[in-house]
Amino acid sequence: MVQYYVGVDLGGTNIKAGVVDQDCRILAEDSRPTGLSEIGVARPGEDVCADIAKTVENALAQVGLSRSDVHSVGVGCPGTVIDEDGMVVYANNLGWRNVPMGQILEKMLGCRVHLGNDANVAALGEVCAGSAKGTNSAVIVTLGTGVGAGIVLDSHIYSGFNGVASEFGHMVIVYGGLPCTCGRRGCFESYASASGLIHLTRKAMEEDQKSLMWPIAKDRGKVSGRTAFDAMRQGDKTAARVVDDYIGYLACGITNIINALEPEIISMGGGISKEGETLLVPLREKVYKEIFGGPSGRDTRIEACTLGYKAGIIGAAMLAAED
Amino acid sequence: MVQYYVGVDLGGTNIKAGVVDQDCRILAEDSRPTGLSEIGVARPGEDVCADIAKTVENALAQVGLSRSDVHSVGVGCPGTVIDEDGMVVYANNLGWRNVPMGQILEKMLGCRVHLGNDANVAALGEVCAGSAKGTNSAVIVTLGTGVGAGIVLDSHIYSGFNGVASEFGHMVIVYGGLPCTCGRRGCFESYASASGLIHLTRKAMEEDQKSLMWPIAKDRGKVSGRTAFDAMRQGDKTAARVVDDYIGYLACGITNIINALEPEIISMGGGISKEGETLLVPLREKVYKEIFGGPSGRDTRIEACTLGYKAGIIGAAMLAAED
Repeated sequence: MVQYYVGVDLGGTNIKAGVVDQDCRILAEDSRPTGLSEIGVARPGEDVCADIAKTVENALAQVGLSRSDVHSVGVGCPGTVIDEDGMVVYANNLGWRNVPMGQILEKMLGCRVHLGNDANVAALGEVCAGSAKGTNSAVIVTLGTGVGAGIVLDSHIYSGFNGVASEFGHMVIVYGGLPCTCGRRGCFESYASASGLIHLTRKAMEEDQKSLMWPIAKDRGKVSGRTAFDAMRQGDKTAARVVDDYIGYLACGITNIINALEPEIISMGGGISKEGETLLVPLREKVYKEIFGGPSGRDTRIEACTLGYKAGIIGAAMLAAED
Repeated sequence: MVQYYVGVDLGGTNIKAGVVDQDCRILAEDSRPTGLSEIGVARPGEDVCADIAKTVENALAQVGLSRSDVHSVGVGCPGTVIDEDGMVVYANNLGWRNVPMGQILEKMLGCRVHLGNDANVAALGEVCAGSAKGTNSAVIVTLGTGVGAGIVLDSHIYSGFNGVASEFGHMVIVYGGLPCTCGRRGCFESYASASGLIHLTRKAMEEDQKSLMWPIAKDRGKVSGRTAFDAMRQGDKTAARVVDDYIGYLACGITNIINALEPEIISMGGGISKEGETLLVPLREKVYKEIFGGPSGRDTRIEACTLGYKAGIIGAAMLAAED
């Protein structure tokens, strides 16, 4: 008998829901805006949950299923969640504190609801069905506006004593360095995120007014995480130095993670990971040169994530396996 | 019926063995020199194992037991070990590569032998019977000549994909900083070890010829990890600044560990941890100011280890629980 699960990715912009079978295939998807009102005014948990329920039902209807056919619904949520309590303890970009989302949704949907942090849930998705499939220990590192991360050990999310572990983005690698939104200085996130790369790019552009990064940025209307990579591909030396510096910081943090946890795989997700082997080849070279004890022939693999946003849906659906 | 275990701490200087009951009490102990010959010439594994076997039998004899009364023997070993293979893959300060210590000892002792890395085994000891007793997740950080660490999750050593995880000492916190023996620059160990503290102390002494650290160091015949702490207690301001700087680096690394793993407890061992609350009070203050999301009322505790060298014996004995 086929077992059906629903995975929900609750983001600041959109609610996405997918019907997922026990083999982690997405059978149908639906989405709608999260509908947050003006900044600073939180939309009530009840309202957002009602929209989640509608999105779930629409996705189910596409494959002729109803709520009673579903084993459980999992929701990946930004911020700190405690699944056992069904509680969103704190979600900065939803403006929520202590919203009992699990209970609200269980009442609306009439089935078991699991909650997980969005980065953790995406990591679980990559382990269940993506780049880290079949591994016993994986760390997923997302290089976006910030640096997110999730740890999956023995197919279970590792979330620590307090539900907020795996904040590798807030590991200081440059003591006294750039200020971070978290209050520390020199966090990995400040250097290895897209924002960190943009910071390095802008600085190098100021120092080299003739760099190809100028016309490329003008052409695209802004300096982005792609500017230096694109200019490097066109032979710009200043851009190549920016990329090399960036990958130096990235390698530093990734090596720290390996020395600490030595997972079987580290998968890189987020916008910058789309550079693929252009990023990964020099990254691996720098990391394997620095890992403790040197390469042993049984080293942490470094790969790119393969599921994109679907990791969040599949991972949320598979939260049920955490039972 | 009482179950007896034997734990062995195999160090570069001494072999220590203890008979341990199922309640983690040490009933008897024996020790003898590891008897390494001149530096650079490794003592054969067979010879060291023969001495381990004698030490084990002497400890057993003290409480009227023989090898047949013993459930299993565990050995904590410096370097990389793979318990499943009974193999010491690499132990720098024994000069060993691929020594099948498990098999050799099982033949000599006629009972099951377990191997573990010494820092991991000591961490397990603190979880079974010391500062971290009763916790589900613990990181033990040893501030000695280097910075060692062990991770224990659900009463099991977490040693990663390759047996060499938990090398938090080789997490870079100062990008491009002081060179480390591991080949990287700016490792936590270079700043938070006793050697790191001595480095800071010497630098401050050069800059302040009137500091009380001078007579204190002269009195003791050397600059040590205690010099700055002792001078601070006598009111020396330069020494107080050294201690504050040192604890700043220590707090940075400890906060990184918490943000990454959020264990229930971090226990500090090694020489410098003997400063007790003089170290821990300002350390906690700095750490809790920096942890991600701020204190939540359910935060990682920061304590001192309580078992000293006995952690290694008890933890090695309790490796059997890893079965």
